[in-house]
Amino acid sequence: MPGAASARPTHGAFLATLIEHQLLVPSGLAGVYGRGPVFEGVRIAVDGWITRRTINERPRRMAFAPFLPREQLERIGYLSNFPHLAGTIFSFDGDEAAAVEQARRAEVGEDWSEFQRQTDLVLVPAACYPVYPAVAQGGPVPVGGTTIDLGGSYVFRHEPSDDPARWQMFHQREMVRIGEPSEVLEWRNAWSVHAVDVLRDLGLDAEAEIASDPFFGRAGRMLARSQREQALKLEVVVPISGDQPTAVASFNYHGEHFASVFDLMSHAGEQAHTACVGFGLERVTLALVSAHGVDVERWPTDVLGRLWPDGSVPW
Amino acid sequence: MPGAASARPTHGAFLATLIEHQLLVPSGLAGVYGRGPVFEGVRIAVDGWITRRTINERPRRMAFAPFLPREQLERIGYLSNFPHLAGTIFSFDGDEAAAVEQARRAEVGEDWSEFQRQTDLVLVPAACYPVYPAVAQGGPVPVGGTTIDLGGSYVFRHEPSDDPARWQMFHQREMVRIGEPSEVLEWRNAWSVHAVDVLRDLGLDAEAEIASDPFFGRAGRMLARSQREQALKLEVVVPISGDQPTAVASFNYHGEHFASVFDLMSHAGEQAHTACVGFGLERVTLALVSAHGVDVERWPTDVLGRLWPDGSVPW
Repeated sequence: MPGAASARPTHGAFLATLIEHQLLVPSGLAGVYGRGPVFEGVRIAVDGWITRRTINERPRRMAFAPFLPREQLERIGYLSNFPHLAGTIFSFDGDEAAAVEQARRAEVGEDWSEFQRQTDLVLVPAACYPVYPAVAQGGPVPVGGTTIDLGGSYVFRHEPSDDPARWQMFHQREMVRIGEPSEVLEWRNAWSVHAVDVLRDLGLDAEAEIASDPFFGRAGRMLARSQREQALKLEVVVPISGDQPTAVASFNYHGEHFASVFDLMSHAGEQAHTACVGFGLERVTLALVSAHGVDVERWPTDVLGRLWPDGSVPW
Repeated sequence: MPGAASARPTHGAFLATLIEHQLLVPSGLAGVYGRGPVFEGVRIAVDGWITRRTINERPRRMAFAPFLPREQLERIGYLSNFPHLAGTIFSFDGDEAAAVEQARRAEVGEDWSEFQRQTDLVLVPAACYPVYPAVAQGGPVPVGGTTIDLGGSYVFRHEPSDDPARWQMFHQREMVRIGEPSEVLEWRNAWSVHAVDVLRDLGLDAEAEIASDPFFGRAGRMLARSQREQALKLEVVVPISGDQPTAVASFNYHGEHFASVFDLMSHAGEQAHTACVGFGLERVTLALVSAHGVDVERWPTDVLGRLWPDGSVPW
């Protein structure tokens, strides 16, 4: 629906509206925002809506802070595919004199990075990454596989942008399936269909499509083409701002990639297959504002009833 | 009660118990844990319990991802006081050949830090930091001041430790008060008294005390003594593991420090004063396990009723 898409505001106009109505608070940096009471209230309600509409049967709840051992990022090959997006954690390594000099440079705006050393931690670029080594510690997954619910988990991607839907740190509402190839793929495909309904029931103009990840460099273009040909990545897109619709959920089939790295075994003693499903909670929130306006109390009654089934908004 | 404290398990024994019962999942790094379903269920219930017992009147909800502009960390003087705890975010800065070399080194376990450049972002070491510049954008705070509820917010501190209560990234359940000196200090003091009740009502052996921050180096010892003499920092401590009780909440009066950095004004046109209150959600969870055991269903009935007022645990 090119007509509908072209009726969306520009990125700049939409961001100005979000700030004017205190949905977001600017930080001075692109893709870094504070979330005001209404935005955060909607974001949490979207999280709850997805939880109530889950197709997972009794998932296991786990949670991880948004970092992971650097060694894990190295082993899964992230630095080959997405070196431009990774955030790594550095920390001070020095004596009292070095600390004084570091603070002095910081105060006068000089470069103090030479006093920082790489730690053994990196920021999590995808919410599912810490799950695989954690589950592998428990031995082979049982018959029927296992499903993990990670709740809403922060991820970091170093991609400052003027697109108000592209944040450097945001919440993925994330679920992971581990098991036999057929059951994992079936779950991933079922979610990609179901998610369209979950989002359309909020009044969003949602469509599923085959997608690819933003692989780095020239070699990355071939990886992206191969990923599309195998339909390894599906997305649901919704118009938010600008000319193109924005991906608000993704559905990824990894084959045995993570199992091979972390020795994740099926009940039959073979490498397990894995898939993950993630909704971008901030993007769904922005899509709702774009579709229904900044005055949340005046959103369509059925949408309000789905987001707040007990009948009251929390602000 | 030194007798009660000395009856607590050692750090190592307590951590082994937590892992054995899948409350925590080890990552291979000190102070970095995955949270199992029961631990995460209790942590979220503690968050809700504190919300229900808040003394804030209609706080304003805001939320921030756990990073902030590096320039803000520089301006508030964090690098002078706590250079050893700060985590800074670096990212790749190079061409395709550099990316190939970086990935190659990572794969064979060589140092690849030279390809990383400091970004304009750092990790948040205290949940309240992003609030002050955000509130300052709205002009002077109104008569009666303003209270912000940040919910449960991740913070990072680079302090790997074998103490199972010292995590490198954890949730502060954080509230901030901004206004006249007397109203801010009164709120801080009232919370420090009230928090003891909030925690004792969960069956915890909680005590309030005057505390100090872990300032860096020799000059830091003087800062810590001055902070104690002025009672700028109060804590509530609870036995968890090891010989010493552990701080699970802190109550900090900043005077006009943050207001002077970020031009945060009172309604009368003077520099506002600020205070913050934070509960360490993972630490309160660990204290509950230490006090009542790993079998949460068998905790005292009144504690279960307070954590889950609708009568059912969520796992």
